[in-house]
Amino acid sequence: MTSIGFVGLGNMGGPMAANLAKAGHDVRVFDLVPELVAGVEGASGASSAADAASGVDVFVSMLPAGRHVEGLYLGENGVAGHLGSDTLVIDCSTIDPATSRKVASALADKGIDMLDAPVSGGTAGAQGGTLTFIVGGPEAALERGRPFFEIMGANIYHAGDHGAGQIAKVCNNMLLAICMAGTAEALALGVDNGLDPAVLSEIMKQSSGGNWCLNVYNPYPGVQEGSAASRGYEGGFLTDLMVKDLGLAMETALGSGNAVPMGGLARSLFQAHGSANGAGRLDFSSIQKLYSPDLDG
Amino acid sequence: MTSIGFVGLGNMGGPMAANLAKAGHDVRVFDLVPELVAGVEGASGASSAADAASGVDVFVSMLPAGRHVEGLYLGENGVAGHLGSDTLVIDCSTIDPATSRKVASALADKGIDMLDAPVSGGTAGAQGGTLTFIVGGPEAALERGRPFFEIMGANIYHAGDHGAGQIAKVCNNMLLAICMAGTAEALALGVDNGLDPAVLSEIMKQSSGGNWCLNVYNPYPGVQEGSAASRGYEGGFLTDLMVKDLGLAMETALGSGNAVPMGGLARSLFQAHGSANGAGRLDFSSIQKLYSPDLDG
Amino acid sequence: MTSIGFVGLGNMGGPMAANLAKAGHDVRVFDLVPELVAGVEGASGASSAADAASGVDVFVSMLPAGRHVEGLYLGENGVAGHLGSDTLVIDCSTIDPATSRKVASALADKGIDMLDAPVSGGTAGAQGGTLTFIVGGPEAALERGRPFFEIMGANIYHAGDHGAGQIAKVCNNMLLAICMAGTAEALALGVDNGLDPAVLSEIMKQSSGGNWCLNVYNPYPGVQEGSAASRGYEGGFLTDLMVKDLGLAMETALGSGNAVPMGGLARSLFQAHGSANGAGRLDFSSIQKLYSPDLDG
Amino acid sequence: MTSIGFVGLGNMGGPMAANLAKAGHDVRVFDLVPELVAGVEGASGASSAADAASGVDVFVSMLPAGRHVEGLYLGENGVAGHLGSDTLVIDCSTIDPATSRKVASALADKGIDMLDAPVSGGTAGAQGGTLTFIVGGPEAALERGRPFFEIMGANIYHAGDHGAGQIAKVCNNMLLAICMAGTAEALALGVDNGLDPAVLSEIMKQSSGGNWCLNVYNPYPGVQEGSAASRGYEGGFLTDLMVKDLGLAMETALGSGNAVPMGGLARSLFQAHGSANGAGRLDFSSIQKLYSPDLDG
Repeated sequence: MTSIGFVGLGNMGGPMAANLAKAGHDVRVFDLVPELVAGVEGASGASSAADAASGVDVFVSMLPAGRHVEGLYLGENGVAGHLGSDTLVIDCSTIDPATSRKVASALADKGIDMLDAPVSGGTAGAQGGTLTFIVGGPEAALERGRPFFEIMGANIYHAGDHGAGQIAKVCNNMLLAICMAGTAEALALGVDNGLDPAVLSEIMKQSSGGNWCLNVYNPYPGVQEGSAASRGYEGGFLTDLMVKDLGLAMETALGSGNAVPMGGLARSLFQAHGSANGAGRLDFSSIQKLYSPDLDG
Repeated sequence: MTSIGFVGLGNMGGPMAANLAKAGHDVRVFDLVPELVAGVEGASGASSAADAASGVDVFVSMLPAGRHVEGLYLGENGVAGHLGSDTLVIDCSTIDPATSRKVASALADKGIDMLDAPVSGGTAGAQGGTLTFIVGGPEAALERGRPFFEIMGANIYHAGDHGAGQIAKVCNNMLLAICMAGTAEALALGVDNGLDPAVLSEIMKQSSGGNWCLNVYNPYPGVQEGSAASRGYEGGFLTDLMVKDLGLAMETALGSGNAVPMGGLARSLFQAHGSANGAGRLDFSSIQKLYSPDLDG
Repeated sequence: MTSIGFVGLGNMGGPMAANLAKAGHDVRVFDLVPELVAGVEGASGASSAADAASGVDVFVSMLPAGRHVEGLYLGENGVAGHLGSDTLVIDCSTIDPATSRKVASALADKGIDMLDAPVSGGTAGAQGGTLTFIVGGPEAALERGRPFFEIMGANIYHAGDHGAGQIAKVCNNMLLAICMAGTAEALALGVDNGLDPAVLSEIMKQSSGGNWCLNVYNPYPGVQEGSAASRGYEGGFLTDLMVKDLGLAMETALGSGNAVPMGGLARSLFQAHGSANGAGRLDFSSIQKLYSPDLDG
Repeated sequence: MTSIGFVGLGNMGGPMAANLAKAGHDVRVFDLVPELVAGVEGASGASSAADAASGVDVFVSMLPAGRHVEGLYLGENGVAGHLGSDTLVIDCSTIDPATSRKVASALADKGIDMLDAPVSGGTAGAQGGTLTFIVGGPEAALERGRPFFEIMGANIYHAGDHGAGQIAKVCNNMLLAICMAGTAEALALGVDNGLDPAVLSEIMKQSSGGNWCLNVYNPYPGVQEGSAASRGYEGGFLTDLMVKDLGLAMETALGSGNAVPMGGLARSLFQAHGSANGAGRLDFSSIQKLYSPDLDG
């Protein structure tokens, strides 16, 4: 049994912490929202982030943005001052790589190992323990963390050193946005020229246009049973979150001086779609409506 | 044994005709270039397109562009005047859907069944008889043609009525171009931020960024053995041909009034890449060089 | 007094023909809509296009698209068979350059001089006789036409040989669309960051961002008195017409193999704006609403 | 006579400080590069930034990026601790609005008035005292600074409160980049379709495509005497600097959640042009070469 501190108990963090507790570990959780602290089955509540961090073997955080992560670790009364030097720190937040590296470096100065380990798989994956972790940090630290990743997830990838997990996730999600917009655009073009969306989807899926969106996340209503598109684009991965991730991709590209014409355009399309059509709270595959304005879905 | 006329004996048409002959059919071939006529093993040469079309059960064409197809069938002394009303016509050219429909309609006026059946799979697929056919036209005509598609190819899709084969191919290739540019863009962003291209490719392939390019056509040199990228982008599917196909997609979108921001940008990127870098005759995955200008590949 | 035939009496053609009549010329007009024929003050009605073309010194056409122009001149019973070889033909339609050249070439075979002379300036310019003509064709033909251009317009530019008028107009309007979208985008960015749209407009107008849209066609409501933006984007140059002109630009670029990333994106933005927001019948400066979705205007 | 401290003596700052001295003011200058300190005619050298800031009536800074400005004012031994509460601070750097506001707010806490006053007009404007200042900050502070702006420049605009100068400049330069790329794209399209670049430029300049680039900064070689394009794109406003400014625009848009499709694409085009063609150190109008790869210029 390992003692684990866990901070950040939202839709993702809550179930992740519960899975660690269910596996038999001693989990102490904290969130600024008291109800969330009380809601994690099998875990004990901490009185503060510092309290959750004190004396634990492993410390996990799952927060919305870089400023929260920086504040948690390095802010006034940050947990950096409370973690033991043999604690393994795992930050599962999806944030900008620069902040990720900054925190890792500050912890390293105190002899503390940190991994950036953003996830994909959504709330269903968090609940089912089937998340994918994309991990940045030293190999040895990853091996220390592996048993805990395996409780919370099904796939673990090692992207490289500190920050590499964030970069790989940012690259993947930028590519996902491009493929989703492209898939919606191709489907609209075909449908508006008389093709059946299911037939066209099947053909492209089997051909060189094949991609994850066509396989498991078809944006056209009625093509895939159970898809977000087939239930009015409710739930799923929200447009607003995709816009956030594309913002991280743009920041990363600005920092490294990369030209990202397709990703930049995708950001503008999802951004305009989200604000103009009030679709920010719909699944991101609702970008289909930007291309097919007469869709009922 | 069926008598088959075949016109258009380039890198694709030549091997396709040879495969039909090898399967035991009586194949009569024609091309404006006499050497090509002589080079099709097992086939007999015709003296003209009209000669190749006269009295055959099946007539196949494989030409570069819509104007050639229109000229072959409907031009002065076009084969429309020489085909029997019970001949099945199969046009395997990749052309604009409007021309495809126009020819099919003119032939239908004479009681002749036509299929538009553009292919994918490249010259290797043509030689090995493993092409993919995306077919437009009536179901019954497709069934008449099926035995011959099965000789020349491995996959046969029915996209819909006349012109639907062209539209489906155009949509697929537009999506392919978007995915390829997006994949190259994501790989460059990752590499320029310190990631290994092979590691990042593997992560995205297994995640939501997964697409055909990552699976079998990775644009980054050295990631996949035997890829175009790993042999200096020689051969393969030429940038110039992708630009042609994207032009067809743009024409189709102009005709139907579709917004195609991602496809339009992809066309401009491949176009600029092809002319500015002299990469028109390289494989289209060389778009990686647009994003990674320091690549040796 | 010159005898002038005039075909195409819409919002533009009608006032243009009336201005020629008012200047003292003998104008015979025709349109497929009988009411339009009757409505041109000072002109006499012709019974057909052929009738309007027979025996006149100058023949003017003003039609919506290339297929209408090709039909008028080269179709069955086209006016090409009725024009005298000393008639000067002036086509004021905005159409694709290829059709323009084709008609000019067919008329040249009969010894007839033709000018392509698309206009800008809108219905107000047509009524007031202040249009701008961008003319393609031989210098000598332009000089023959000058007195008539000067009646209908205020500015006459010679772009080059046959078709050059169309090309220059297509280039200008593509640039206009880019500048308008860019201006709206910059204004939205400034306003959403706290700036006053009038103050920002004034600064950019005086600086290196200055362009015709800022000077006389500001897309932000309330900045310029009397602008389309300040009257709910009613009237003016319709989004649908801008989409048509951008389509001509794309066709031209496809024909010459030019990369047009900015123009292609502008086309997609205006296209999506027009269909998604029902703004096709609003002035094209309403693209501001795409960037500023909360605008009342 | 006013005592003025001036920090940042590069190609812009040096001549600006010299003009202040020439006008009779007591100017004390500092730069990390000692040679630059010695090179400002009429000014006395300070031993440090703090020294230049101590006891002056007006303090001016002209630095490359936000981190330099933040460091100068708020860093360890920053000048914030040395400025008198009645000193007027003018920061002429072009930086991100967020940093600009942060510094202004920190100085306001000490009762110090600050203006953000980014300039345009280039090194020629700095030398000739003809710069344009786009000023953010309170009206009263602007009036205090006006006499000094009038020495260094010819045009002074008040954009709004703190940070507004930066925002207005960022918006203007984004629009400039869009217009320049659009102008180059339209010229390439016309030229590749047979038009003369000078004729087409003149037509568009007089028509609705008119913009500052066509008026005074034509990107096509040979059209305007003395333009950067006509001297091999040497000197002028470097592509690298435009990429920097477009980066500021993207950051601003990310912060406010604005969709900037045209600006984002322009950034990618200038970025790719700069790195792929080694054109980072050429004038930004060399973007014409991206569209017209066969240009010698």
